[in-house]
Amino acid sequence: MAYFPDIKKIEFEGQKSTNPFAFRYYNPKELVNGKTMEELLRFSVAYWHTFNADGTDPFGASTMVRGWDRFDGLDRSKARVEAAFEMFDKLNAPFFAFHDVDIAPEGSTLKETNQNLDVIVAMIKDYMKTSNTKLLWNTVNAFTNPRYLHGAATSRNADVYAYAAASVKKGLEVGKELGAENYVFWGGREGYETLLNTNMKLELDNLARFYHMAIDYAKEIGFDAQFLIEPKPKEPTTHQYDTDVATSLAFLQKYDLADHFKFNIEANHATLAGHTFEHELRVARENGMLGSVDANQGNTLLGWDTDEFPTDLYSTTLAMYEILKNDGLGKGGLNFDSKVRRTSFDAEDLFHAHIAGMDAFAIGLKVANKLIEDKVLDNFIDDSYSSYTQGIGLEIVEGKASLQSLEKYALELTEIKNKSGRTERLKAVINQYLVETMAGVTV
Amino acid sequence: MAYFPDIKKIEFEGQKSTNPFAFRYYNPKELVNGKTMEELLRFSVAYWHTFNADGTDPFGASTMVRGWDRFDGLDRSKARVEAAFEMFDKLNAPFFAFHDVDIAPEGSTLKETNQNLDVIVAMIKDYMKTSNTKLLWNTVNAFTNPRYLHGAATSRNADVYAYAAASVKKGLEVGKELGAENYVFWGGREGYETLLNTNMKLELDNLARFYHMAIDYAKEIGFDAQFLIEPKPKEPTTHQYDTDVATSLAFLQKYDLADHFKFNIEANHATLAGHTFEHELRVARENGMLGSVDANQGNTLLGWDTDEFPTDLYSTTLAMYEILKNDGLGKGGLNFDSKVRRTSFDAEDLFHAHIAGMDAFAIGLKVANKLIEDKVLDNFIDDSYSSYTQGIGLEIVEGKASLQSLEKYALELTEIKNKSGRTERLKAVINQYLVETMAGVTV
Amino acid sequence: MAYFPDIKKIEFEGQKSTNPFAFRYYNPKELVNGKTMEELLRFSVAYWHTFNADGTDPFGASTMVRGWDRFDGLDRSKARVEAAFEMFDKLNAPFFAFHDVDIAPEGSTLKETNQNLDVIVAMIKDYMKTSNTKLLWNTVNAFTNPRYLHGAATSRNADVYAYAAASVKKGLEVGKELGAENYVFWGGREGYETLLNTNMKLELDNLARFYHMAIDYAKEIGFDAQFLIEPKPKEPTTHQYDTDVATSLAFLQKYDLADHFKFNIEANHATLAGHTFEHELRVARENGMLGSVDANQGNTLLGWDTDEFPTDLYSTTLAMYEILKNDGLGKGGLNFDSKVRRTSFDAEDLFHAHIAGMDAFAIGLKVANKLIEDKVLDNFIDDSYSSYTQGIGLEIVEGKASLQSLEKYALELTEIKNKSGRTERLKAVINQYLVETMAGVTV
Amino acid sequence: MAYFPDIKKIEFEGQKSTNPFAFRYYNPKELVNGKTMEELLRFSVAYWHTFNADGTDPFGASTMVRGWDRFDGLDRSKARVEAAFEMFDKLNAPFFAFHDVDIAPEGSTLKETNQNLDVIVAMIKDYMKTSNTKLLWNTVNAFTNPRYLHGAATSRNADVYAYAAASVKKGLEVGKELGAENYVFWGGREGYETLLNTNMKLELDNLARFYHMAIDYAKEIGFDAQFLIEPKPKEPTTHQYDTDVATSLAFLQKYDLADHFKFNIEANHATLAGHTFEHELRVARENGMLGSVDANQGNTLLGWDTDEFPTDLYSTTLAMYEILKNDGLGKGGLNFDSKVRRTSFDAEDLFHAHIAGMDAFAIGLKVANKLIEDKVLDNFIDDSYSSYTQGIGLEIVEGKASLQSLEKYALELTEIKNKSGRTERLKAVINQYLVETMAGVTV
Repeated sequence: MAYFPDIKKIEFEGQKSTNPFAFRYYNPKELVNGKTMEELLRFSVAYWHTFNADGTDPFGASTMVRGWDRFDGLDRSKARVEAAFEMFDKLNAPFFAFHDVDIAPEGSTLKETNQNLDVIVAMIKDYMKTSNTKLLWNTVNAFTNPRYLHGAATSRNADVYAYAAASVKKGLEVGKELGAENYVFWGGREGYETLLNTNMKLELDNLARFYHMAIDYAKEIGFDAQFLIEPKPKEPTTHQYDTDVATSLAFLQKYDLADHFKFNIEANHATLAGHTFEHELRVARENGMLGSVDANQGNTLLGWDTDEFPTDLYSTTLAMYEILKNDGLGKGGLNFDSKVRRTSFDAEDLFHAHIAGMDAFAIGLKVANKLIEDKVLDNFIDDSYSSYTQGIGLEIVEGKASLQSLEKYALELTEIKNKSGRTERLKAVINQYLVETMAGVTV
Repeated sequence: MAYFPDIKKIEFEGQKSTNPFAFRYYNPKELVNGKTMEELLRFSVAYWHTFNADGTDPFGASTMVRGWDRFDGLDRSKARVEAAFEMFDKLNAPFFAFHDVDIAPEGSTLKETNQNLDVIVAMIKDYMKTSNTKLLWNTVNAFTNPRYLHGAATSRNADVYAYAAASVKKGLEVGKELGAENYVFWGGREGYETLLNTNMKLELDNLARFYHMAIDYAKEIGFDAQFLIEPKPKEPTTHQYDTDVATSLAFLQKYDLADHFKFNIEANHATLAGHTFEHELRVARENGMLGSVDANQGNTLLGWDTDEFPTDLYSTTLAMYEILKNDGLGKGGLNFDSKVRRTSFDAEDLFHAHIAGMDAFAIGLKVANKLIEDKVLDNFIDDSYSSYTQGIGLEIVEGKASLQSLEKYALELTEIKNKSGRTERLKAVINQYLVETMAGVTV
Repeated sequence: MAYFPDIKKIEFEGQKSTNPFAFRYYNPKELVNGKTMEELLRFSVAYWHTFNADGTDPFGASTMVRGWDRFDGLDRSKARVEAAFEMFDKLNAPFFAFHDVDIAPEGSTLKETNQNLDVIVAMIKDYMKTSNTKLLWNTVNAFTNPRYLHGAATSRNADVYAYAAASVKKGLEVGKELGAENYVFWGGREGYETLLNTNMKLELDNLARFYHMAIDYAKEIGFDAQFLIEPKPKEPTTHQYDTDVATSLAFLQKYDLADHFKFNIEANHATLAGHTFEHELRVARENGMLGSVDANQGNTLLGWDTDEFPTDLYSTTLAMYEILKNDGLGKGGLNFDSKVRRTSFDAEDLFHAHIAGMDAFAIGLKVANKLIEDKVLDNFIDDSYSSYTQGIGLEIVEGKASLQSLEKYALELTEIKNKSGRTERLKAVINQYLVETMAGVTV
Repeated sequence: MAYFPDIKKIEFEGQKSTNPFAFRYYNPKELVNGKTMEELLRFSVAYWHTFNADGTDPFGASTMVRGWDRFDGLDRSKARVEAAFEMFDKLNAPFFAFHDVDIAPEGSTLKETNQNLDVIVAMIKDYMKTSNTKLLWNTVNAFTNPRYLHGAATSRNADVYAYAAASVKKGLEVGKELGAENYVFWGGREGYETLLNTNMKLELDNLARFYHMAIDYAKEIGFDAQFLIEPKPKEPTTHQYDTDVATSLAFLQKYDLADHFKFNIEANHATLAGHTFEHELRVARENGMLGSVDANQGNTLLGWDTDEFPTDLYSTTLAMYEILKNDGLGKGGLNFDSKVRRTSFDAEDLFHAHIAGMDAFAIGLKVANKLIEDKVLDNFIDDSYSSYTQGIGLEIVEGKASLQSLEKYALELTEIKNKSGRTERLKAVINQYLVETMAGVTV
């Protein structure tokens, strides 16, 4: 049985194709600088937005009716697995990602919940034997159930903490079972609503303890996935502890956890924190902690997480620039943590949206690669900072300078000449690369 | 004497040019749908950002040293005129725009200030005889001088109000003398700092009186420029009365001024007000009040007016889309109310920046024109709203429906079927047009 | 049967009371400047937040279990009515407000929905016979049901428009039946997601037609409630047409609707639009259109509508200042469009929250009244604008001035002297009134 | 000669005083919990805002004319010193703070600049002999001079780096000479405008080297002031490296600097970063790094640093709550990094503003102290987290738990009961304390 019977397998047809259900730019096997696009982009379908979301928003009910909605309970979960692998195949998606509650219904007890999970995990494992799609990461949803209203690993209720720990134990086991390449921690309600009623110190200490336990257990069972922290500054809580990369890094350093984690960086979370997507990628990269990406985009004129499919080519280009400079994402990938708009309720919109996102990142990859090949930014930057490759600058970089030696030097300076930052020119060059790269015009 | 001796006249050299001081996309005489790019884009150089700004910001002193800085007083103003017309010529700029204080120094009395203006206006008029560059608009700066600390036409001090009125009188005379096509009112300090000390009603009544006086005087002297209101929501004041197009429209309607004004819409002001640039253009257009554009861009992650040169191609495309749908800007133009970054302090950065902006709008024009030619959005929209072209929808549109007739109809409805908004697909199409239009690929 | 058996009737016990379930500041029968607090504040309980909301948020499931949840369908609706009137009585609430879907379940057809409404409306009417609580306003929810995904009166689907019209017809009839003093239009999805697929002109024209039909029908059935527009700038849509008071006023003026509407102003909507609460109240007041208030507060560091119970005393004071200057709210009231936090899930939190809000507005009322009695701001403002009461200022205000006459005056001016705005001093005075008023200290 | 001849020494006169030039709440010698208000609040006057600022803003020229403006160059600097100590005395200000460029004019060379500093530092030292006012902190302005356009310790120009180092060397010497209790680093331009032209890694490495040199030199000269980092997220640069406390902490930890620094936390910088003031204080406090405070407030509806005098009593109360919980500020203080509005241009406004701020913090101190004395929040929090004091919770806190042991526990759990967070009730209590504390009503 097909859940998307009208949709054929999406193929690369090139820029002149008039078929809306084709890739115009994403050509999985095409080589870019020696690697295939597929290897470089490592696209992943997000189970929750694609197979669980139904168009509900705080002011509106479900707008989407899917094929699996005719079933209930575990049967619906099974139908979702079938639909998922049908879509993975039709989209050529090399990866997928899920929370525990996305794939199986919660039972009335932890035991029953775990049993439900076991059923579906076995089914998924079976599907994966013949599918080309692998598990990029799994995680545990420790925020939706009302028990988590005060957080999970930062809950003020030790019973809740214990329950969350048990769920993460199961999550690690599931990840191992399905060969997940990463395991993600998104602190959905790890934060506070108001400081008036919050013991921040205890909560953060407990969070660190939680992570150490998870590390220990993964080691014990031989689950070698990369652990990832996913920063977000706010929503649902007023303040989320994992605000952004730098904040999370401060936490990881303080609690001796930095060696065990990398970051899963989401574009929309970056802008909610007041940063560009590429800023967060850069900070992670320069700290050796760029792990994976939740590929989406926000609307900076709105103040909540809109999780739109990524189509802004500036954003995909600058993101791919950081990723290529990082020698790729390693075990990570580009996971479409993106949802179709509530008004894009047709099943075919799910395909339009993934094609839009995959093509947008394919263009971004090619433009970024060309910028790097041509050393457009590198040459400019090298020249800008050239004073640190010799003389007093080299002394500074080599740690040989002191305030005294620098004062001595400064007292002799007659004139200081700075160089223009050329921002406007650089932006014009980016535009040129954007509109010319696909046309193959030499810039 | 040349103020930009190293810069040759900027010419269109096409997309393959490697000369940074050339247009790659802006080809003034190229026809787009029957009109030249020059006619459609009507670029204007903003005097203040280009010839008066020096890189000062609230935390830093001037970084820019210009050729005219070696002079003082009126001589500096004269040197600026020379430099301006040199640049207008080198940039092929068809228009420029200025505030009174940009072109001539304020004297110690109103009389002296007016005399200074007379000297420079005569000089500009002389230059214009042989120049191809015309005056898009002029205006009066009624916000910088400390007398305007409580506003000008909304000042709580009648003497200040009178002074501002006298300045605007002179401004209208200057506009007539130089053949300005428009006259702009930007209410730099027309607003309030705190309601605690403000009589908003009196201030707005006085503002309306001020505009009526200006209309009367322009009529009296036969100055037939289009009057323009330039909305901005905040900065420098906490709340500016001309918040956005809709707010200003409410004011103009209330005080019987709507027939006498159109809007000068600035991209950065739009985003400061929480709107997209294209939203403000659309609202003005659909009210028949799209007058002119202050072409720049902001940074939506920052909360102040950054006045960057426009390079975002999404923004230039969607702006040009509205402008083409408006049958152009009429007497208005695209005025670069944009400043080079404080770190782009070289004189050549002024050229890089204008080229960046002009090329970005030229691309936007071509992409927008192609979208319209191909009816990409029009066809989709026509289909989306087709229910209003017949049956009950037509009755609604023709004003024949009532709650009773609609209830009768609704009670008979068995199923309501909506159509998907296809946002993700439409965004993919926009991307396709963006990367393909310049390459001439048929989409 | 009691739904809040542990809660006794809330009484005024004064500031020294240690009973958390008492009013400390809200004393309904206490006179403030000749009117009772009850008359001046006209508090209203919002049905939806109090009897329908369950703690769900975009990342979390229901946290609140209420007494009426043991019932289903119409029985649950009936239980809610019982609980509501129990609470209204215990809170001494003079008013309540609801959407149609709050009080009765939607049926599978419009007819069935209306029948459900009839049952509950009759029950409410019956309760109202013996209750002191009246209906401040009712409205129709035309945003939650998926049929409204593209809006209601601005839907691109004429069937949806007709359905919404039928619902509003019923809403007006319900309002008349229950003696509603106002009828509110909140355009929950009247706006757009993206301009790419939107015909804004047609949508706004249709919205105006809709309002005219509603006015006609209300007149026809003799329903003389005050019609209210409730502005909001965004959420759920990207852009809501009724952005703020000024924007809505522009719309109402354009379509000859201004005489038929006043505004229902919500604090949190004001800040989402970039305005203070008091700004929106002032704009409405000075246009004679301050109708009613949705009393809540937002968190300006968050970008969505948090609908918190109002506790900020600056906000309640400045709001009451505008309301007192407006000679009260007329038919309007202070409706707590406020929800307890998801973590405040106990039934008793509903009482804590309403007490917090009512006491906060009672304090605000007293402080504002004292500020007005002592003419603290009035005297300062009168002095600030005194130049308009004589000489050239009076000529301006009387419409006798022209640019020429003002230039003549300005040319004679030797020195212009402004007066300090004294913002810091005025803020200190506000603080003094805030901390002293309740203590009865003469400031 | 007196610069403020009309202002008498400001004395505490109590809440019933009608003298605007008196403290109503700030009573320096009054004991609060065993310490004087003076000791607890440690107010400091900011030299730059009070003696250097002139009302200039990005759209307006100077509005303030001060007594010292009649002098030039070093004479003006000397006059400022006289005026400053006159004001310190009249305000009973125990501390002041300055940047190098505030007190002495920059010369044409570093040498000359240092000579100017020497003259004024000697004069200040002389004044301090007989004054009660001490130096809270000094710092070096490494952002205003155009040489710092690309930053100072993160400049891309080694000459600039050297110059900044020399200035900081002098700054440390000046601090030692004047007995500064702290030395502040505000990275005015340590950040970037665009990543396109930025080598973030090199810049941050260099910044760390710079701090290490400063530490070494201070040690060498025996200057034992507390070093302070002052976080700010943006403005003037697009992105400032010292974004907020957590970000700066990540940096300090990474570069082995955490033991040498505490934080100087500014309210307006906190809100620009999307945090509350009290959040930043809490994070610093819980990391043992709460050093000092730049006492001001912002306007969260505006996106730039407004540096208003602090008058919001919620903010002063919650700030003092954190400070009291920190056992005070140690060497730090409450420095009014606040400027009178451009429209508050009279010299007397400087006094109104400081009185407003000092009284606001005095009220905040008393309310916070009462909240702590009565254990209002402490008791609630202790109860909320009580599950961690026994059983499984205690095991977690003591580090004895593992995912396995917690799973075992969780599998046995039959029901999980959370407690309400009572946000609305707590806010009502805060209001009660706010309006009652000064009146001495027992809450």
